[in-house]
Amino acid sequence: MSVEVITTGNEIMSGLTQDTNFSWVAAQLSSSGIEVKYQCAVADDLEDLLASFKTASKRARFVIVSGGLGPTGDDLSALAASKFLGTPLVFNSAVYEDIARKLEKRGRKPNTHHEKQAMFPEETTVIENPVGTAAGFSFVSGSSKFYFLPGVPREFRRMFSEHVFPDISGVAEKGTMLCVRVLRTFGLGESEVAERLEGFSPEGVDVGYRIRLPEIHLRLTASGNDGEMLDSLLRDACGEAKERLEDFLFSLGDETLEEVTASLLLEKDLTLSIAESCTGGLCSSRFTDIAGSSAYFLGGAVTYSNDSKEKLLGVSAETLERFGAVSGEVVSEMARGARNLFGSDIGLSISGIAGPGGGTAEKPVGTVWFGFTHVSYGTFCERRNFAGTRDEIKNFAAATAIDMVRKFCLDYVG
Amino acid sequence: MSVEVITTGNEIMSGLTQDTNFSWVAAQLSSSGIEVKYQCAVADDLEDLLASFKTASKRARFVIVSGGLGPTGDDLSALAASKFLGTPLVFNSAVYEDIARKLEKRGRKPNTHHEKQAMFPEETTVIENPVGTAAGFSFVSGSSKFYFLPGVPREFRRMFSEHVFPDISGVAEKGTMLCVRVLRTFGLGESEVAERLEGFSPEGVDVGYRIRLPEIHLRLTASGNDGEMLDSLLRDACGEAKERLEDFLFSLGDETLEEVTASLLLEKDLTLSIAESCTGGLCSSRFTDIAGSSAYFLGGAVTYSNDSKEKLLGVSAETLERFGAVSGEVVSEMARGARNLFGSDIGLSISGIAGPGGGTAEKPVGTVWFGFTHVSYGTFCERRNFAGTRDEIKNFAAATAIDMVRKFCLDYVG
Repeated sequence: MSVEVITTGNEIMSGLTQDTNFSWVAAQLSSSGIEVKYQCAVADDLEDLLASFKTASKRARFVIVSGGLGPTGDDLSALAASKFLGTPLVFNSAVYEDIARKLEKRGRKPNTHHEKQAMFPEETTVIENPVGTAAGFSFVSGSSKFYFLPGVPREFRRMFSEHVFPDISGVAEKGTMLCVRVLRTFGLGESEVAERLEGFSPEGVDVGYRIRLPEIHLRLTASGNDGEMLDSLLRDACGEAKERLEDFLFSLGDETLEEVTASLLLEKDLTLSIAESCTGGLCSSRFTDIAGSSAYFLGGAVTYSNDSKEKLLGVSAETLERFGAVSGEVVSEMARGARNLFGSDIGLSISGIAGPGGGTAEKPVGTVWFGFTHVSYGTFCERRNFAGTRDEIKNFAAATAIDMVRKFCLDYVG
Repeated sequence: MSVEVITTGNEIMSGLTQDTNFSWVAAQLSSSGIEVKYQCAVADDLEDLLASFKTASKRARFVIVSGGLGPTGDDLSALAASKFLGTPLVFNSAVYEDIARKLEKRGRKPNTHHEKQAMFPEETTVIENPVGTAAGFSFVSGSSKFYFLPGVPREFRRMFSEHVFPDISGVAEKGTMLCVRVLRTFGLGESEVAERLEGFSPEGVDVGYRIRLPEIHLRLTASGNDGEMLDSLLRDACGEAKERLEDFLFSLGDETLEEVTASLLLEKDLTLSIAESCTGGLCSSRFTDIAGSSAYFLGGAVTYSNDSKEKLLGVSAETLERFGAVSGEVVSEMARGARNLFGSDIGLSISGIAGPGGGTAEKPVGTVWFGFTHVSYGTFCERRNFAGTRDEIKNFAAATAIDMVRKFCLDYVG
C-alpha cells in the first residue's frame, strides 16, 4: 500500500509558486498511519505528464494528481489522463450545468473555456468541486487508483478531505500512526537548548528542532499503532523536556508567548501598559492580538522622540541628556511613566537601536534596554544585545519584553 | 540540458516540514533561462535514495540533492552516494578541523556525531559550508553532475548561490529566460481588480494573481531569449495595468505599502502621529519597520480604554458617551489629539471592533472608523466594514489607515 502525489504546473517548476498541497496531504495521511512513499512535480507538458502517470501506476496503489484542471489551454491533466487510459474526452452535461449555475451566481455566463472544464476521459468518475468550477475525477488503472484534483489549495483540500481521504483510509492497511507535540521555548540560543537536551532521547520518541526565531521549538514525534501508548510516551517525554528546559519552555501546545502571558496576567489579576521606542508599537500589537486583551492591557505609548518621552511619559530632560535615550535610567523612567499614564499595575518599556544605522561603539546596533515596574515590587531594568536585521531586532525585543512579563507573573505572589 | 532536484527527509514525506528549497532553486535557475525538468522527494531510506539517484543519473545533466547531511543516524545522503558510486566513505581531516573550529567559537567540542559529518564518498569534491557544520560534496557520474547540499534553507541557499549556480550556469545552454514583475494593489476586492483588468492580455505577457490579503498582487511574466525585448514587453504591460488600476496600484516593485507611503511623507516633508485603538499598535509598528522612520513618524498612542482616550488624546467624555468609542466623532477627536500630543502635521486614528466579540447590530464586528487630520486641510473621517478573523481585521484596518496617508500625500500640494 503506497501513495504517490504528483504536483503539476509550469508555475511550480519555474519556482513562481510554492506547492503547499503535498505537505498538507502528507500530514493528513501520515497522522492516520498512511505513508506517502513518492512525490514528484511535473511541468504542463503532455509527455512529462504521461510519463509520470506511467511511473506512478507501476509503483503506487493510490495516485493523487494536483493541478491542470483549469479552463485555459495549458491545463492538460484531463487530456493526459485520456491518453494514459486510451479513451476519448467526453462532454459531461451535468458538470457543465453546474458550472453555469455557479457562474450565474457571480453574474457571469459560461464560455467555451468552461466547456473544456466539462470534458472528462470516458469511464472516469467525476469528483464534485463544492467551492470552484474545476471538477475533479478518478479512475482505476491496473492496481492503481488515480485521483485528479484542482491545484488551488482551498479546493484541493476540501475535495481531498471529502472524497479522497475516506476512500484511501477505508482501503488502506494502516501502517504506523504519527503523533506530534510541539514544545516552544524562548530565551535560550539553539546551542543552549541543545546543551540542556544533551542525552535526551526518550524511548520511542524522535526529537527534532524547529527554529522559529526568536523562539526555538522542539518537535517530539512518536509513531506506532497504539494511540494511547503514543500519548503516554509523549507525555513522559514532555515531562522530562520541561524539567531540563525549566521556565524557558513556555508552551506545550499551540499557545503563543503572548497568549501564555495574557493568561497569567488574567489569573494574577494584573494590568499592564507599555512604552515603546525601537519596537514602535509591535509589543502592544502582539498583546492586543488576543481577544479580550482590554481586560489586562490598558494602553501603550510609542514615543519615538526624546520630546515625546518627556511630554507623554515624564522622562526628565536631564536623564535623557546625561544617559541617552537608550539607557537603563531612561527605560526605568519610561516604565514608571507608562504606569502613571495608564494607571496599570505593571509598566513595561523598551528603548534600543534597531538599525541598520544609529549604532555607536558603546551602544552598537542591537543594543536594547528594557524597563519594568510594578506598583509595589519596584522598578528594574535590563540590557540585551541582539544580532540581525531591523525586523529581527524588533521581533527579538518585543518577545523579550513579553517574556519579562511572563516570568514576573510566574513568580508573582499578589 | 536538464536539472533535477531531489529533496530528502522523513519530515518532508510526512508533511511535518514544508520544503522550500525546490521552489527557490527553480526560481533562481528559471530566471536565468535554465529549466528544472524534474523534482522529487524521497524519505530517509537507503534504497529509496539509491533508486532516485539512479533515475536522476539517467535523465538529468545536473542533479541537486537537498538534505540528509546532518550529524545523526537518519542522515543517509553521503552513505547512499557512496553506494551509488561504489566507493567507500573516507574521513576528511580538513573538514573535521573546520567543524571543530566552528564549534569552538560557540564554546563546544566536536563529538563522534561530527566525525560522521567529515566522512565523504571517495573521490568527491567537498563543498564548503560557510554558515554551518554540514559540508556538501559533488561528483560526476556518467553524463550527470551531482551536488549534495544540506537541507537547512539558509545553508542550502548560500552554498547553491556560491558553488552550484556558477557551475551550472557556466555549462548550461540557456533556454528561455523568465522575467517577472509584481504589481501590488490595495483597496480593491479581487473581483474589482479582475473587472478593471477585463480583456487585459498584453502580447507575450502572462498575467497571474497572487492574493496577499489585504493586498492583491498581479504577476506579469514574460519568457523568451531576448532580455531587452522582455523588459520592453513588461514595461508596456505595467503601463497599461497602471492606467486601469489607477492609484489602487501602489507599487511596481518590491516596495511595501508603508515604504511607498514613507517615501511620499519624506518627499512632501510631512510628519505623522497615530492614535490606535483596535489595531493596538500595529499601524505604528508598520510605519516604524522602515529604517529612518523617525524623520516623519513622531509617535503613537495605543488608547484601548475610554479613559486613556480622554486622558492622552483629550477626547471629550461627552462625545464618548453620546457616540461611543467606535464613531466618526471619536476618531476625529482622537486624530486631533494625536496631532496635538506629538506636534505632527498629520494626525491619524483608528477605532473599531476587531472581534470576535463586542459587535452589535448597529456596529457589527469588523466595523472600523478612521480619522485623519492635517494642520491646514482640516479633519475628515471614514467608516469601513471588514470581514474576517481578529488578525485579518487588524491587518485590513492598519493597511487602510496607511493607505489614507498615501492617498493624501499623492494629492497634497504643500
